[in-house]
Amino acid sequence: MNSLVKWAFFLFVLVSLLLNIILICIYSSRTPKCSAQRVHPLRIKHNDRSRVFADLTRDEYLQVQQYMLDQKDLDISSRQLTKPSENFLFLIDLSLPRKADVLSYLDGISSEPVREATVVVFYGSRGHIKEYVVGPLPNPTYHQDVTKKRYKMEIPINARTVTIGEYELLFKFLQQQVFSKLPQLMKESFGDKKLEPFEQMPRGVRLGDRTTWVSFFRDLKGIYIHPVGFEVLINHGSVNESEWKVEKLMYNGQYFDTVEDLQQKYALGSVQRIIYKEAVDYGSLKPKHMPLQLGPIQFYTEGKRFSVCGNHVIYLNWSFAFGLSSLTGMRVFDVRFKGERIAYELSIQEAMSVYGSVTPGMMITKFLDSSIGIGRFAHELVRGTDCPHEATYVDTYRYIDVKLPVRFRNSICIFEYNLGQPLRRHFADFFSYSYGGMVNSALVFRTITAIGNYDYIWDFIFYQNGAVEAKVHATGYISSSYLVNGSLKHGHQVAENVLGNIHTHFINFKVDLDVLGVKNVFQTKDMEFVNVTLPWMPNRYAMVPQLVEKQLKTEQEAALRHGTKTPLYLHIASNKTNAWGHQRSYRLQVISFTGEHLPESEKEERAMSWARYKVAITRYKELERTSSSLYNQNNIWNPPVDFSTYIKDNENIEDEDLVAWVTTGFLHIPHAEDIPNTVTVGNGGGVLLRPHNYFDEEPSIHSADGVYFSPGNEKSCEYNRMGCLAQETCSPVLEPFTYNGFDGVMKFEE
Amino acid sequence: MNSLVKWAFFLFVLVSLLLNIILICIYSSRTPKCSAQRVHPLRIKHNDRSRVFADLTRDEYLQVQQYMLDQKDLDISSRQLTKPSENFLFLIDLSLPRKADVLSYLDGISSEPVREATVVVFYGSRGHIKEYVVGPLPNPTYHQDVTKKRYKMEIPINARTVTIGEYELLFKFLQQQVFSKLPQLMKESFGDKKLEPFEQMPRGVRLGDRTTWVSFFRDLKGIYIHPVGFEVLINHGSVNESEWKVEKLMYNGQYFDTVEDLQQKYALGSVQRIIYKEAVDYGSLKPKHMPLQLGPIQFYTEGKRFSVCGNHVIYLNWSFAFGLSSLTGMRVFDVRFKGERIAYELSIQEAMSVYGSVTPGMMITKFLDSSIGIGRFAHELVRGTDCPHEATYVDTYRYIDVKLPVRFRNSICIFEYNLGQPLRRHFADFFSYSYGGMVNSALVFRTITAIGNYDYIWDFIFYQNGAVEAKVHATGYISSSYLVNGSLKHGHQVAENVLGNIHTHFINFKVDLDVLGVKNVFQTKDMEFVNVTLPWMPNRYAMVPQLVEKQLKTEQEAALRHGTKTPLYLHIASNKTNAWGHQRSYRLQVISFTGEHLPESEKEERAMSWARYKVAITRYKELERTSSSLYNQNNIWNPPVDFSTYIKDNENIEDEDLVAWVTTGFLHIPHAEDIPNTVTVGNGGGVLLRPHNYFDEEPSIHSADGVYFSPGNEKSCEYNRMGCLAQETCSPVLEPFTYNGFDGVMKFEE
Repeated sequence: MNSLVKWAFFLFVLVSLLLNIILICIYSSRTPKCSAQRVHPLRIKHNDRSRVFADLTRDEYLQVQQYMLDQKDLDISSRQLTKPSENFLFLIDLSLPRKADVLSYLDGISSEPVREATVVVFYGSRGHIKEYVVGPLPNPTYHQDVTKKRYKMEIPINARTVTIGEYELLFKFLQQQVFSKLPQLMKESFGDKKLEPFEQMPRGVRLGDRTTWVSFFRDLKGIYIHPVGFEVLINHGSVNESEWKVEKLMYNGQYFDTVEDLQQKYALGSVQRIIYKEAVDYGSLKPKHMPLQLGPIQFYTEGKRFSVCGNHVIYLNWSFAFGLSSLTGMRVFDVRFKGERIAYELSIQEAMSVYGSVTPGMMITKFLDSSIGIGRFAHELVRGTDCPHEATYVDTYRYIDVKLPVRFRNSICIFEYNLGQPLRRHFADFFSYSYGGMVNSALVFRTITAIGNYDYIWDFIFYQNGAVEAKVHATGYISSSYLVNGSLKHGHQVAENVLGNIHTHFINFKVDLDVLGVKNVFQTKDMEFVNVTLPWMPNRYAMVPQLVEKQLKTEQEAALRHGTKTPLYLHIASNKTNAWGHQRSYRLQVISFTGEHLPESEKEERAMSWARYKVAITRYKELERTSSSLYNQNNIWNPPVDFSTYIKDNENIEDEDLVAWVTTGFLHIPHAEDIPNTVTVGNGGGVLLRPHNYFDEEPSIHSADGVYFSPGNEKSCEYNRMGCLAQETCSPVLEPFTYNGFDGVMKFEE
Repeated sequence: MNSLVKWAFFLFVLVSLLLNIILICIYSSRTPKCSAQRVHPLRIKHNDRSRVFADLTRDEYLQVQQYMLDQKDLDISSRQLTKPSENFLFLIDLSLPRKADVLSYLDGISSEPVREATVVVFYGSRGHIKEYVVGPLPNPTYHQDVTKKRYKMEIPINARTVTIGEYELLFKFLQQQVFSKLPQLMKESFGDKKLEPFEQMPRGVRLGDRTTWVSFFRDLKGIYIHPVGFEVLINHGSVNESEWKVEKLMYNGQYFDTVEDLQQKYALGSVQRIIYKEAVDYGSLKPKHMPLQLGPIQFYTEGKRFSVCGNHVIYLNWSFAFGLSSLTGMRVFDVRFKGERIAYELSIQEAMSVYGSVTPGMMITKFLDSSIGIGRFAHELVRGTDCPHEATYVDTYRYIDVKLPVRFRNSICIFEYNLGQPLRRHFADFFSYSYGGMVNSALVFRTITAIGNYDYIWDFIFYQNGAVEAKVHATGYISSSYLVNGSLKHGHQVAENVLGNIHTHFINFKVDLDVLGVKNVFQTKDMEFVNVTLPWMPNRYAMVPQLVEKQLKTEQEAALRHGTKTPLYLHIASNKTNAWGHQRSYRLQVISFTGEHLPESEKEERAMSWARYKVAITRYKELERTSSSLYNQNNIWNPPVDFSTYIKDNENIEDEDLVAWVTTGFLHIPHAEDIPNTVTVGNGGGVLLRPHNYFDEEPSIHSADGVYFSPGNEKSCEYNRMGCLAQETCSPVLEPFTYNGFDGVMKFEE
């Protein structure tokens, strides 16, 4: 083709591409997916560049899977029940492009970064795990082994997550090597009922171990709170299941070296027996009463005020892109307020729990959920209970430990919620009389991940004052153990023979704020009392609060440990100033009730070293993307990611691209009210990102939601549409709006 | 009458009284006041004994007022503009009966305690203040001076709150003695516009002082953020206003001894002048945009599930009585869950702020709001903004610094709120498949008090899991000062020439829990890591979390100071145990972001010594009813209530009637976003009272709000009425309920 034809062709492609995009977004804005109805005039437009953060589509997963299977030299299987000795295509997930490339693309400077996938293969036949980057998408043509680059080590095969294929073999092993060899015990102690296994982690006590304590539970609803007092330590360190063996058993507080040992001693009567008793199914969540009158429900009386298009959300002044990593869970990117980027990324990193017990498995239990997959368990959300009935629900697709990508319908919900209290208000009853206020209505982005026993509710909340909140609440079942001698040192009894074990919850969030660009500083602010002389009484002194501001210089200075006094205000700030000359900043306010972190003397601690710090500030690095890894649980003694090393090099953090790693959580001492389920009330934590001199004034003053009236125009709806809703037909029946609040105060003026 | 007739007469009176009560409650349950509509079958009945806690009625106020005016020897005036030199009937409020008497009455053991009022008279002519108990109500016949009994001291007249009568004189004084003597300055600096005064407190620096720095502000909306740089120190220590004098003036950072001094130096040009400039009314709350599409709104689709009768509230398993003290604000009593009393009282005690500044007034400012009256400023709540439109609104009557009792319409709101997230939920995707959950719908009891610049939002929240929360959020205007040299040490500039001054917020709640009767103990629980040997590997050790429980013995042990390590779990416990042998208890979980408390070396500190402690536990005493007093602000150097003395006697607190005094709050470093109003997001605190082994299981499992389904019956509404609401006609248009969450997980089972 000559260059003119080339140009014409290029233009044609470009125009039809644009047309397509426009058509897609016009079309989709009519479907529930693009849910804007009668929205505030959009000052912001959907940005299809957000696709750079989008999870892989079903087709993309399939293409990557096929590409990998086509690499015959790799000898990979994608069968669901691939054996540990084979090579299994465990995970396909989006590989995020470099931040610099993305920013350059988002800001219109460079073209779209190449779209790539991360692929994890468990090479059972070769004894290691490999991570690949596969691209470009769609229609991949290359794969690159990035294991060494990402982790600076080889990942041994036993660092792998237990797959469904391995579980299948483990369950068989238990049946053949344990249950079937203990017929008398199984009958007398457990009524010959099916027992369900629940594993404890880490799988052993030293590097190389893959030796798992499996605790048994009755096959009732909520198995986790029906322990039977029987635990088995299985060495499944070999990828060849024929080499697996039982290393120890615990029955009713007594230990046995082999199944035969237990069987014989049991038969001889030298074992204190557990006598089977039918149990009440106290773990059932089936309500004991039929539903009656429904409680209050929230509606969009005038339609949704937010719009979801693809993986991009617009809500009033806010916009952001979103995704859901199978490993770390939900995340948002390119978070903007009035078009100005505030955060590049806000994401979950890890959920960790350390348990206490006298029973063997739980005694050493330290769960690192991202190694199982946090996002993996983001199931469909139940309308009206998990999220408001009228929320917008989004499907996700995932490929983790499956044979084909799986669609998880309605696994993200997005909704605006009227929080039932004012965002701000003032009633003026001196000098002048007026009322000005605004209800706190905010956008919530939510997933709920049911990881075994626990359900974590994850919320990112976007407020009209420019604040963003990351919140987590825990619910679901506690983990429990069979009550034996000494148990009560580690918790409270919560049911017959059941101990609710003490445990910690530590949650790590990555908060990559970019305040007016990536070059930021970390500041702290607090108060101190200073003794000053009173200017009008020079011989009199008073202790007066002063502002104490500091700018921290290095990563080590900015790694704020638990249990140390921390300044009350923590800021990511720009050197650019607002109208009043103050550095524009976002403040991090952490809400946390964490217990003690595992002592650093413990060799498992490095795998969870992020939990040492309430907040740690590091320089952004492509190779420091996450505070944990898929392999930290099962390679806990030599973790591929040890967060503390991010800080060890003690880099300068002034005028750099900064990332805040925020830890929240709570100590959980279980109690009877955890049966059947832990409630969310009080069991949570989070971090609030608040503008602090970022703006020149409170931005919500520009919201059309403001309400205002003064004496004489209380009934006017000029600035109080809610006050007129009762007269409108579009809403349910409301009592009419009335207000007489000025009467009381104006009487004072005689 | 012979005794038979007497008996007949007595019976007749009793029966008609009962009939009246029944009729009133039947009648009122049809009116909006008794708002139950199609309520869950009430297992609990309204309890008219709650009247023992009810605020005085309008008639009762009038009766007490008349009774006091009839005591001619007391020479009391109730005129609104009573002068300081006269004797002013300042306050009439309910006098709560002794707790023992109330409990005995509530529990049906003894008859109703005598109803009495507390009356405060400012005896300007006698130089002191008296508190009386006046009774019985209705139709009082006696008054008793209880000042000495309650405060163990005389209350000098200058301990009084500044009344509207005194303000009237102060404003006149300012006009005549200041403004009118500075015509040139007033014109050039302030454009001859009206200036509004805002006083700083305490009024002086030592005992006996009543010398107030008055700062001046522009007469714009939100005067508090329009300081002009002019402050005057007025000595109004004499009750005779003719003896009042200006003691000092501050103009643009310079000090002057007299008005004449300022006037002369100003005329001579030896003063750095402030040049008047028209100001933008940035304090206005009038929205900059017209209301558009309304945000989401919550409705009772099937009617209210709570009922308010008089001052008694029933909500599902909850019941409580309520009142609103003019001084301390809202309070609830006799809080019961399933009929069992959990708390005798939950109330606000004090709201305190300490400011920092280089400007004279604010340099020493320490506000103690209950001395002005917290409940006093509980104005009408605005439907749809302050509380949900469909809340139940209750009127209150108050008598404080008025000539007649004042009705405050709709000054309390009560509503059930769907908090938009599950109270509990679990999605079972292993072993068995089911979903069980329940939305978190709770009852909120709210008032908002606009005390000068700040608006405090007070919430008591009653959850279906048996938890109660006391919460406070601050909004409204910050207090500010004119920017002069050195100002920036004490805050941030927030507008032209305006400094937002650093300040603390400390809030004190009284939490009088009675866990299964009044005899309780105070327990703490926490974790510690203990090095233990692994039973199956005797040569291996691991650090394992253990439970650490303590029972604190004395008031001093149980006074937990800020800045010290405090156990994570604090419990008020009974010695009675639950089904699993654990002491039944309620846990106090404090949410707080307080700054530093005023050093104890400062002589004003004793008046706010409750703020030393996060939580302090004391023995209940009739003479230790409040942690502060009406007189603590203006008699700050010899406070009638010094909370620390409650602890000093270090009484035993084991098996005693215990009261927890809980302090919450936050450090406020103002920023541009505080203009015009501070937002509630992040600016609050509170305490959550949570059952901990109080029950034998989670009580919400018995709620009819539970939702449950398993594969195959996702569409059934047997345990999911919300799922069927879409088909019902009573509700707004809803999308139909769907759920497919089991599909994704059940696919794993090949």
